[in-house]
Amino acid sequence: MALIVQKYGGSSVATPERIKAVAKMILDTEKAGNQVVAVVSARGDTTDELIALAKQITDKPPVREMDMLLSTGEQESVALLAMAIIGLGREAVSLTASQLGIVTDEAHTKARIKEIHPERIRDELRKGKIVIAAGFLGVDKDLNITTLGRGGSNLTAVALAHVLKADVCEMLTDVDGIYTADPRIVPDARRIDEISYDEMLELASLGATVLQSRSVEFAKKYGVKIKVRSSFKESKGTIVMEETSSMEDIVVRGAALTKQEAKLTILGVPDKPGIAARIFERIAEKNVNVDMIVQNIGHGGKAEISFTVLRSELPDALEVLNKLKTELGAEAVEADPTMAKVSIVGVGMRNHTGVGAKMFRALANEGINIEMISTSEIKLSCVVADADGERALRAVHKAFNLGNG
Amino acid sequence: MALIVQKYGGSSVATPERIKAVAKMILDTEKAGNQVVAVVSARGDTTDELIALAKQITDKPPVREMDMLLSTGEQESVALLAMAIIGLGREAVSLTASQLGIVTDEAHTKARIKEIHPERIRDELRKGKIVIAAGFLGVDKDLNITTLGRGGSNLTAVALAHVLKADVCEMLTDVDGIYTADPRIVPDARRIDEISYDEMLELASLGATVLQSRSVEFAKKYGVKIKVRSSFKESKGTIVMEETSSMEDIVVRGAALTKQEAKLTILGVPDKPGIAARIFERIAEKNVNVDMIVQNIGHGGKAEISFTVLRSELPDALEVLNKLKTELGAEAVEADPTMAKVSIVGVGMRNHTGVGAKMFRALANEGINIEMISTSEIKLSCVVADADGERALRAVHKAFNLGNG
Repeated sequence: MALIVQKYGGSSVATPERIKAVAKMILDTEKAGNQVVAVVSARGDTTDELIALAKQITDKPPVREMDMLLSTGEQESVALLAMAIIGLGREAVSLTASQLGIVTDEAHTKARIKEIHPERIRDELRKGKIVIAAGFLGVDKDLNITTLGRGGSNLTAVALAHVLKADVCEMLTDVDGIYTADPRIVPDARRIDEISYDEMLELASLGATVLQSRSVEFAKKYGVKIKVRSSFKESKGTIVMEETSSMEDIVVRGAALTKQEAKLTILGVPDKPGIAARIFERIAEKNVNVDMIVQNIGHGGKAEISFTVLRSELPDALEVLNKLKTELGAEAVEADPTMAKVSIVGVGMRNHTGVGAKMFRALANEGINIEMISTSEIKLSCVVADADGERALRAVHKAFNLGNG
Repeated sequence: MALIVQKYGGSSVATPERIKAVAKMILDTEKAGNQVVAVVSARGDTTDELIALAKQITDKPPVREMDMLLSTGEQESVALLAMAIIGLGREAVSLTASQLGIVTDEAHTKARIKEIHPERIRDELRKGKIVIAAGFLGVDKDLNITTLGRGGSNLTAVALAHVLKADVCEMLTDVDGIYTADPRIVPDARRIDEISYDEMLELASLGATVLQSRSVEFAKKYGVKIKVRSSFKESKGTIVMEETSSMEDIVVRGAALTKQEAKLTILGVPDKPGIAARIFERIAEKNVNVDMIVQNIGHGGKAEISFTVLRSELPDALEVLNKLKTELGAEAVEADPTMAKVSIVGVGMRNHTGVGAKMFRALANEGINIEMISTSEIKLSCVVADADGERALRAVHKAFNLGNG
């Protein structure tokens, strides 16, 4: 008998009807011959509502009490889901963090799991019960309630799958898997059957919000097999797993578009050691995240440095650059807030040549100008004008034949 | 420095504004030179809303999961109140049942406290923190969340006051104390300064809902001094305490009216042993609570038995009596659903004579007919027509001069 950890997100349990539907899915999984541990998030907008409530009490809610407050959302979900399963005639038990034995450090609102004591879970499974586990939560060594931060429920699911030696950790969500590109932009985008942890990590960093980097990293570290599938309809889903040699036959696994990018350039800076360090230290002090960086050596011992940031962080970055312009004796600062980034990801890139040329050609054929290029071992990104972004994504998706995998 | 346990009910913390007002009251109590442990209930209608939610999931929500669900109400309250205090610049910590060390039996939804391990509370107080304790909740020996049933938060407060050896357990509520009668009916009703546990128990059984019998019994058993006062305005409140000899100088402490009573009579039953037992066993099987019972020996070896029940339970009681009429060969069954009961309570009754006569005279002077009478050591009750109830209460209240104590 296989043991499956399933994670249901907030939208999957938003209403009593959906909770009952989830209960049925869990029973179906069990009837197929599996033991089930279901990890659940807070329902719908509960967490946002609780945060709003706290803000009505005080401008800066203390983090320990915030965790105490937020934990009620998950606790409500697990109780209701357990009720729904029991209402269908099966035995189930809801367990919250201290009962699950999930011990974290004391970093409230962004705690890290330190250890898990799964004796109670094993005990309940042995008694034949379906275990409904509160996601997102932990307790520190003094039994204070902690929360794991963004994507915390996914992390709970992967961590429990690891310690329980589950056969698979299923992420039930409102999409039926990971796609070769966003289907809202690329109509012939195709669900991916299997993807490696590294590819998934790159896609997550490019905005694939179904799985956050943190839970994928954890899964990679401990070899937990993840399956992403829909909680609303039948689907084979996508398996996130160790890289296999056959995966390298596919050059590009998926493509992604990130909008809301901005490009900054500082022109005519002295071409000497320490300049780049000075610029990006100052940018970092403002808590601005820099994505892509390109440096060109110009003429006469002068260099130009371009980089991209989130559009929302452009004003802060610009303020820093304008100050640096004077300090460094640079010639000019340019900024363009209307940028986008199109990327391709695939472990096959390591062993295939001509990948970049193919991408650049696809964009050129569409008359799209490339502003910046960056490459990593399994990713290739081009910055283009925001207005060209969606067309660029479709062109690249087609060039690598991702729609007919 | 005195240690005060304060209990705030659901209406006192219903809105963010009220939570902030409660936070100020706690700080005021502290500034007056006290340490404070505040016990809090779920906000406003939260508990009812959660019950309604559970009913949408399944007709009969399992009790363990119900407790898991309901506990979120208190947990929300304590987190918000702790935030409010911290927002005012003082240190506070919210603690839920497992952190409070409140261990109960496994009787979900009506658990009994077995032991309390207050080390964590003492520790937080020693650190100078105000402790905000979740009322109503406990954990069983396996860390399952339990609830203490109706009036549970009051019980939490009294139990914590006992184990912490608090100087007083203050019940902050929407009334400013215990009154000689319901002020909505008797305009000159007066707040009582001091009342004995036994008198309070009688008044509680007569419908004084501010304090339930259970918490008063607990307080009596362990000698915990309770003070009932308003969370909305300044007031001396009422102290519920051990009986003192001076308390007996007052014959009657308070008067109460219970409406919604119904009277049943079975006439002409054979006057032989076991008949009353047979009748009330059968009534009990229907889960009908019988209040007052009067048996008269009539003529020719026939008896008549009258008793009162809640009006809502009259149909069930009547069904039983009509069957018994045939079985016992009784002559008739009569029922009157329009009854009320007026009662006086006071430990002074033990040593004073003529109390009954004075009450009956007061009712007679108003032309009010007494249907039934029952007496206990410190209580005297008369059943009257519902329509006469409020007038009867006012007459009795006046006869014993309760308005000018």
